[in-house]
Amino acid sequence: MSLIVQKFGGSSVADAERVMNVAGIITDTYRKGNDVVVVVSAQGDTTDDLIDKAHEITDKPSKREMDMLMTAGEQISIALLAMAVEKSGCPAVSLLGWQAGFHTSSAYGIARIKSIKADRIKAELDRHNIVIVAGFQGINKYDDLTTLGRGGSDTSAVAIAAALHADRCQIFTDVEGVFTADPRKVENAQKLQEITYDEMLELATLGAQVLNNRSVEMAKKYNVEIEVLSSLKRVPGTIVKEVAKMEKMLVRGVTKDTDVARISVTNIPNIPGIAFKLFSKLAQRKINVDIILQSVGRDDTKDITFTVSKDNADGAIEAVRSSFDIEEKDVTCDTNVAKISVVGAGMESHPGTASKMFEALFESDINIDMISTSEIKISVLIDAKDADRAVSAVHRAFFPDK
Amino acid sequence: MSLIVQKFGGSSVADAERVMNVAGIITDTYRKGNDVVVVVSAQGDTTDDLIDKAHEITDKPSKREMDMLMTAGEQISIALLAMAVEKSGCPAVSLLGWQAGFHTSSAYGIARIKSIKADRIKAELDRHNIVIVAGFQGINKYDDLTTLGRGGSDTSAVAIAAALHADRCQIFTDVEGVFTADPRKVENAQKLQEITYDEMLELATLGAQVLNNRSVEMAKKYNVEIEVLSSLKRVPGTIVKEVAKMEKMLVRGVTKDTDVARISVTNIPNIPGIAFKLFSKLAQRKINVDIILQSVGRDDTKDITFTVSKDNADGAIEAVRSSFDIEEKDVTCDTNVAKISVVGAGMESHPGTASKMFEALFESDINIDMISTSEIKISVLIDAKDADRAVSAVHRAFFPDK
Repeated sequence: MSLIVQKFGGSSVADAERVMNVAGIITDTYRKGNDVVVVVSAQGDTTDDLIDKAHEITDKPSKREMDMLMTAGEQISIALLAMAVEKSGCPAVSLLGWQAGFHTSSAYGIARIKSIKADRIKAELDRHNIVIVAGFQGINKYDDLTTLGRGGSDTSAVAIAAALHADRCQIFTDVEGVFTADPRKVENAQKLQEITYDEMLELATLGAQVLNNRSVEMAKKYNVEIEVLSSLKRVPGTIVKEVAKMEKMLVRGVTKDTDVARISVTNIPNIPGIAFKLFSKLAQRKINVDIILQSVGRDDTKDITFTVSKDNADGAIEAVRSSFDIEEKDVTCDTNVAKISVVGAGMESHPGTASKMFEALFESDINIDMISTSEIKISVLIDAKDADRAVSAVHRAFFPDK
Repeated sequence: MSLIVQKFGGSSVADAERVMNVAGIITDTYRKGNDVVVVVSAQGDTTDDLIDKAHEITDKPSKREMDMLMTAGEQISIALLAMAVEKSGCPAVSLLGWQAGFHTSSAYGIARIKSIKADRIKAELDRHNIVIVAGFQGINKYDDLTTLGRGGSDTSAVAIAAALHADRCQIFTDVEGVFTADPRKVENAQKLQEITYDEMLELATLGAQVLNNRSVEMAKKYNVEIEVLSSLKRVPGTIVKEVAKMEKMLVRGVTKDTDVARISVTNIPNIPGIAFKLFSKLAQRKINVDIILQSVGRDDTKDITFTVSKDNADGAIEAVRSSFDIEEKDVTCDTNVAKISVVGAGMESHPGTASKMFEALFESDINIDMISTSEIKISVLIDAKDADRAVSAVHRAFFPDK
């Protein structure tokens, strides 16, 4: 007998039919003799509907009242899912975040889980109930409701799995697992059996939106084994764990990220402290910089090029202008760029990975604009129009057709 | 400075515009220097929408999960109303039933308030916040959410007013107050300035659906002064209190109740214990009997006629058949009847009231079928087709045109 945590997102419980489908997955797991704790998000569009209701009242709702409003969404879905499980013939009990013992920081809208007092969950499991917990929400020291922010339900699920020392945390999504590339775009994309936390983090950051980063970081910290799998197709998914089987793969996946803006600054005086000045201005504005490239330009001047997410482009340009007394033509921003990356913990000891990637791009006549490397990834910046072709070419190089 | 509790029903907060209207009433009260605690129901159709969602899943949702589902309705409306009050420039904080300290019995769907631990409400008032509390809901000894059943928000409001020793409990509805008759039906219906708890209870029972009976009973018990008034028209309403000014009125109002079935049983043997046998059978089935009339029939037999609510008619007939060995033709049921009543604490010492009522009906050529009297009311059963005409005639007799 195992203790299994299962998490279902909003689209998995969007209507009565899908709720019954999810209840089927849950009761199958329970009937195999497992203890089951379920974490569920608000139904399909409920969150958006509630946000609309707030905006009909005011442009600037207080964050406390927004959390009061939003947490009603999961309350509805846990009650409906508990009814569906009971209808399927198994005992169930729904619990709100505070009933399940989710104590968080006070920051409304972006609260962090501080502790889980799992007494109630444990008591319900002892009574052989399937426990259905509202994801995304908790309670702060003032006894007020809080939400965990984007992807919060994944984090809720991993946190419960950690608190209960669950044997596995299953995250059900609309894809079958983690793939070597986006299967909707790349014909030969392969589902990975296993992947490490670090690889998963790199993949998530690079645009393979399967798992929320905070949840993977928490899973790594508490060594919670995650399985990513489909709520619609009953096939094994991808296991995320500390040490994954290598499967003779150096590279785990190829990803594309088009949420990139490239800012180029030319003709900066070539004196010390310039980079520090610029990047401290960006840090003050809480702008994350990804790839950085600095070169000496003509006449004792420097060029600095860096990338940020698109919504930070304007802020980054302002930061540049406030850092240097510079002509307008010397600051340019290009948003027609894409970042293509290969990720894999195996690659650091295999120097051929980078050259294999570059060769594939060269043979497809794709120009590389910037390059960045870490221990487990290689990223290149290219023209956005070449992005899908680049992913296919690089993927073919590392995962030749069977 | 006074402490005022204000309650708004679902239709008063049905959409953003009405929520802003209610926020206007609340902030006007606050800006006059009062402490304000607000109790609010779920928005318009939210409750029905949630019930529909449950029934898409199952015919028989568990009561616990229904309460988990339904309480999300008020959670949404308190958050929106708090946002609207904040937008109107006053500080507000929304509180769920459990946060406001509503401890109830464990009976899901029909819980009774056991106690209110008002520490949080008091603390928020001390911080000069307008406190917006979810009506209709509480928490039981298992830390599970409960609902109070029909009219529960009125009860929530009166209970808070009692717990806080509020100066007044204002119940906002879609009518301007309590009238001497239904103002949509009777031209000359007059709004009462004041009315006693007992009169209000009789009026509520008799079909003037302004205030929920449980809330009036609680107000009487804790001597909470209620004002019934309109959320749309800013005019004084009707005060419900222990001793009302007499306003030279013997009669407070004339009401009509068409939810009546008359059961007649003829040819019952005239021996002792017959009535006891019948009415104990009815009591076992939890059927409330209203008017009872017993007469000696022909040949040492009795006739018993009594009235019940329409949905209890079939159960009452079964109870009759199981009580007596009786022919089918001797039990008849008539649902085309209406009960017309005059209510007023002053009438008991004025014997002319009944004859005045009967005279008005006689002059309108309306036949009286049964009569029932108590200290503060006189009811007659008549043909349903005459009901509206009867109310007008009786009302005209007691409230002549000015």
